[in-house]
Order: sequence, then C-alpha cells, then structure tokens
Amino acid sequence: MANLIEGNAVIGQSGGPTAVINQSLVGVVEGLMAEGAGQPANPIKRILGMRHGVRGLTHDQLIDLTDKDQHTLNAVARTPSAGLGSTRDKPDAEYCKRIFHACEKNSIRYFFYIGGNDSSDTCRIVNELANEAGYELRCFHVPKTVDNDLPINDHTPGFPSAARYVATAFMADSLDNASIPGIKINVVMGRHAGFLTAAAALARRELEDGPHVVCLPEVPFDLNKFVDRVAEVYDRLGRCQIAVSEGIQDRDGQPIGAMLIQGEADAHGNVQLSGSGALGDQLSLILKERLKPASGKPPRVRADTFGYLQRCWPDASPVDAEEARRSGRYAGVLAASGDVDGSVAILRTGKGYDGEDYRSELERIELTDVAAKTKHMDPGYILGDFDVSQHFIDYCKPLVGELPVFGRL
Amino acid sequence: MANLIEGNAVIGQSGGPTAVINQSLVGVVEGLMAEGAGQPANPIKRILGMRHGVRGLTHDQLIDLTDKDQHTLNAVARTPSAGLGSTRDKPDAEYCKRIFHACEKNSIRYFFYIGGNDSSDTCRIVNELANEAGYELRCFHVPKTVDNDLPINDHTPGFPSAARYVATAFMADSLDNASIPGIKINVVMGRHAGFLTAAAALARRELEDGPHVVCLPEVPFDLNKFVDRVAEVYDRLGRCQIAVSEGIQDRDGQPIGAMLIQGEADAHGNVQLSGSGALGDQLSLILKERLKPASGKPPRVRADTFGYLQRCWPDASPVDAEEARRSGRYAGVLAASGDVDGSVAILRTGKGYDGEDYRSELERIELTDVAAKTKHMDPGYILGDFDVSQHFIDYCKPLVGELPVFGRL
Repeated sequence: MANLIEGNAVIGQSGGPTAVINQSLVGVVEGLMAEGAGQPANPIKRILGMRHGVRGLTHDQLIDLTDKDQHTLNAVARTPSAGLGSTRDKPDAEYCKRIFHACEKNSIRYFFYIGGNDSSDTCRIVNELANEAGYELRCFHVPKTVDNDLPINDHTPGFPSAARYVATAFMADSLDNASIPGIKINVVMGRHAGFLTAAAALARRELEDGPHVVCLPEVPFDLNKFVDRVAEVYDRLGRCQIAVSEGIQDRDGQPIGAMLIQGEADAHGNVQLSGSGALGDQLSLILKERLKPASGKPPRVRADTFGYLQRCWPDASPVDAEEARRSGRYAGVLAASGDVDGSVAILRTGKGYDGEDYRSELERIELTDVAAKTKHMDPGYILGDFDVSQHFIDYCKPLVGELPVFGRL
Repeated sequence: MANLIEGNAVIGQSGGPTAVINQSLVGVVEGLMAEGAGQPANPIKRILGMRHGVRGLTHDQLIDLTDKDQHTLNAVARTPSAGLGSTRDKPDAEYCKRIFHACEKNSIRYFFYIGGNDSSDTCRIVNELANEAGYELRCFHVPKTVDNDLPINDHTPGFPSAARYVATAFMADSLDNASIPGIKINVVMGRHAGFLTAAAALARRELEDGPHVVCLPEVPFDLNKFVDRVAEVYDRLGRCQIAVSEGIQDRDGQPIGAMLIQGEADAHGNVQLSGSGALGDQLSLILKERLKPASGKPPRVRADTFGYLQRCWPDASPVDAEEARRSGRYAGVLAASGDVDGSVAILRTGKGYDGEDYRSELERIELTDVAAKTKHMDPGYILGDFDVSQHFIDYCKPLVGELPVFGRL
C-alpha cells in the first residue's frame, strides 16, 4: 500500500442493465474492502456509488457503500438490473470535464465504471483529463454488455445470462410452435453484433427443432432469400421458427428495422429497435403476403419481440454470475495495488468442450484497447446466410449453464 | 369395474398450450393405468393420444400411450406445451359428428379433452351425439387455460404458471425501469378476462414498485383517463410501469387493440392480438405525443409484448403442476368408476393466507356447467380504474409459488 494515494473510491453503472451487473458492483466493493478500504489507517477512505452513473456523479447524487454488510451485498449481487441506477448519457469532452471536476470535489482517486465500450471510452477520457491536470486518478472499466461486443474479451459479463434466457425461450417456443404449427418470428436484442441471436441455436436438441432460420446483423439481409428459406422450411416441416436480430441490415449497412417502419419513423421522429414490436410485425406481414397460396388462406405467422426481459430475467447463468463478481473484485484489488488503470478482460483458459472443463482467467488490458471498439461475430461462427456453426455452439454452450431437459412422445 | 364398457380411451389437447397441460395428459394416463387399463382382463384396452386434438382424431392420427414407462411420462409431464400437439379447430355440429364417427371406428368408449371452454363444449356436443345414437361414451373435459376464465373453478391449470411468469417479469422489469427511468408498457395475454394482467401486481414489494397502472378488460378503457393517470405517476416518480391486457376494450365492448391498429387490420384482413406488438407500440406513440412537454423532448416510452413465453416458460408453479396432474388423474379414475361424464373443477379448501395453508380439492361438475361459458374478474378484485385489490393479491399469491427475493441499496 506504500504508493496508495489518499482519497475516496467511486463506482458507477452505465448503459443497459444486465442480470449480473450488480455482481460486478459488489465485486468492486469486496475487492476494495479486501484491501482495507474504509479502515482507519487505510488511504482509501470511503467507497461511494454514483446514482445513475456519471449523471449522478455530476449532480452530487452519491451514496456511501463502505459499511454495507455482506448479507446486503450478497442480496444486491443476486438482483438483476443496475442497483445504483444506470444512465444512457454518453459524455462528450465537456461532460467528461464535469466528471473530472466532480472527482476532484469529492476527493475521488479511484474511479470504477461498469459498462460497455462507451463506458470504457468515458473512463479513457476522464483518465486523460486527470493525467493532463497532474491529478492522480486510477480509472477502471469493468466490462458489461449483453451484446458481447467488447474486443479481446472471450465474452462479456451479462451476455451468458441473456444467452441463457434466449436459448431457454427458443426451446420452449419451439415446442409451442410444434404444438400449433405455423411460422413464428422471435426478435432478439443486439444492435450491431449477432451473438445473442446466435445463442438461439443452443435450443436445438433434435433434428427438426428450431430455430430453423437465424438472421444475424453480420450477414447482409436479403428479403427474397429470407422468404425463400422460410418457404422451404415451412413446406418441409409445416412450421418454421425464426430468430431475427433487431440489428439486421442490408448490404449497404442500412438497418432493416428502420427501413421497414420508415413511415412511423418519419411521422414520429424516432426509430428505436428495442422496446417496440415493429420489426417482427413487419416481417410477419411480409411473410403472410408472400407465402399466401394462389387460393386459400395465408399461413399462420406470429412475431414476438423478446424485449427487456432478455437482459433482466432473474435466472443468471452461474458462470456469468461468478465471472461478473470476479471481474469487479479484480478491478478493486488492482486499483489498490499500484498506479495502474485499465479494463478487465475475460480470457478462456479451458475450452469447456472436447472433454476439457471450462475455465477463465482475468487480465488487465489498456483502456485504449477496448474504448469505443466493437467486436462482431467471427466468420467461423456463421454458417451460410441463415445459421450458426458448430464452432459457435461449442463456444457459447459452456457459458449459459444447464438448460431444461424436455420429454417427448 | 362391473359396469365398464369394453373399448379404448382417447386423450386430446386443445387450444393454446400451457406450462402444465402435459401434467394433465400424463395424469389421465396414470388415472386409467391405476384402474388397470391395458391389462389383459381389463375392459379398457388401449390408451390412445390424438395428434393435434380432434383434428388428429378425425384424420386417423392417433398414437398409443398405453405402454409408456413412468420415466418418459414424468419427463413429458415436466415439459411445457402440448406433447400430443394442439389445435385451434372449434368443431361445429358437422365436425362433432366426424369426431363421434372416429370414436365408433376406433372403438373409443372413453373420451378425454384437455382445454378451455371451447373444448368442454366439444365434449358436450360429442357426448350428446353419443347419447342420441345409444353409443355408450364417457366424455371428460379436463380444464386448462392461462386465461383462468372457466366458471365454478377457483382457478384453472395453466393460469398459476403463466401468472408466475408475468409476476416475475414485472418484478425484474420494474428494476430495469427504475435503473433507466421512463415509461414502460408491458402487454399481457388474456383476450376477455384480466386475471393474467392482474397477476402483474404480485410483483410489488416496496411502495414505489411497479406496476403503477393496470389496465384490465373488465374496466372500460378510457384513453384520456389513461394518459392522465400515467402523467400523474410519471410526474411523481419520474417513471411509470404499466400492465396492459391485450384484451382491453372501450365502454361499448370494442377492443382497443383492433381500433388502434385499424389501418393495418383493414389492409391485411386480420386483427390478431397475441403474436404482435401493435397494441403496445400504438399506446407508446400516443403517450409520447400526449406527454411531450411544450418545449423539449417527449418522455422515453418503451413497450414490450410478453407474447407466447407467458404460456410456455419452463418454470411451472409447483401448485399448478401438482393440480394439473391431479385433475388428469381424477378424470381418468372417474371415467373408469361408473357411467359418468363431466368436467373437473378445482375448489379451494384452504385459503393460503390469513394463517391458513393453501389447499384444493377436485370435484366433478356437469359439462353444461362449464361448456362455452366465460368467467370474468370479480368486481371485488378490481380497485378503481387502474388497479387490483388486496383481495385479488390474496387470491392469486398462493398459486404462483415462491418469487425471487431481491436486494436493494
């Protein structure tokens, strides 16, 4: 502790909540406490929490987390959604200055921000401002995103639990679709990366199980090919279950959702992808029209948009819960161990398939390695226009925990 | 067994599947087996299953369930969705004749149909046809519907598990809504009865928890009152979580969903409520417009439509699973016990609150008591225009099983 600067620590949560973002919050608190934070002789005086991320920090909305008992911490860790509150604010340079001044004002020397690539960029800018001002501030980014799109990381905390929900949902919905046959579209979160939509493929157990068609943002969406593929499956099985990413786009990178609901977007000024059923409903109408036989009724087509339950369903993947907690602890301990800053990355050290147990280790990486960068699905994870490869299944399956086992007649 | 007629039994599943409809299926099989069905000297020869309900029966799509081992039966019972397949067919008089002839052809003397009020009506008509023809046929209806709208029954198998999903979803989503404040609409299944939407109220733990506004089909929906109530909550809490039944209707009984999406309905000929996000999206647009301040941005409004996962999520209420199984067994045993037909009703014999344990008993009721009849929410369960009463909470809570316990800072 020789080189520890005296001051307070602050922790914030940012962006879309997850089922395990509170594990990371509690992990940071535990890591700092393990290093003696809050004890009389310790240079780390208080552990503060930002209400609603940097918005709370810049508005003096801080709460003291130093003396929370372990029982409360454990209960909070198990609870989905951001316990401190989150924010959608993406600070520009001016906003980052206000953040930095709030740190000075509150004697903050240890700054933790749990979030995705925007949050790591906020860390990076605040860190640079502190360096320029000669103010010692240790900035740590703790990874979190259901989109699984941070570079270097094998995967990100939050993704395995969301993938668990999506896989479970597709398993149950595929049985529902088999019991009253028809075409069923399920729209899955993920604006730029297809990992969460791809996780639907974990639902398959038997040859004819859905999802039968998987549409990822990484594969340019061609409406004619899509209709042909659905028609082929529907002719063969009498039903078709479809996984569609909310972020599917055409060859030019134009989002399909925004194009299909253009009228509404123009009239009301807003095209949002999550929290709306528009993409699924539009694809549903198109399939009804295009697959209608020359005589007779159109096929039964239904669309569900899984929505926010994907990121907050209270049944976290055990691997995810453990890694999220460990990532937070790692950052807390690291910040108290020397004059460093950075982000935490999860590396896979045991494959979790081919007879090898799943294992992961954590590593400090530079903020600039992760800040504002986006990872997409590896081409090796994608199979043709409408499916994922076994390679992706191998990658994803060890992360989500046990899935239900169903019986069939 | 003196008065048992020699022949086969047949079991079918009808309407929207549930998380426990297979418990009832397995229950009927177990009830018949307990009476010796399939054993050499027993008059009940084989236990058959209809593929996709009466559609399969009339198309010779039957499978033999007599020799299924208990391990398979248990696994099927735990599996959501209709294991035999279901159907949306609502037989008219002519169709019912075909059903009756299929019974004669397959030497069926014991007819079980698991479903809602339409299914009990099918049982009733087939039973009358058999009586007219002097063909002895014991017709049993086994109750099933997430809508909870069958008369006489305290509640119906399928409802408690769907209510468990809805309550859990509102708990988690309320935390999500608190962490990134805004207005959140969640559309819940239930075309005529509001029980499932009302179950959202089980999510409340602390004073400011959602749902803050509950819109039931039993209360005429007034758009101005709705906007005013949401505005009042939003002003007070900075957020508002709303439970909306897909079946809300105006003072004249006109469905709001169909009216709001009228344009689409006219163009494409179909107004469907489930499997579409249209109602939530339209209410969302209205709130954005009406709550937009004179200057500044409209509030953040999002809508999720819970969709088919409500009825198939593989985490059944333990009470529901046990009662569904018991209802099936009860019908199976009863059919083999004498010349009777009817439906099975669940009666509550232990309240499950005020210090009294929850208990239920089963009773045979007449097919005409339940056929084609619909129960709505008791006025005593409704509080004002936008809430449910403590009386409803008391009624519903013992049915859904343990809900998650969350920690807060």
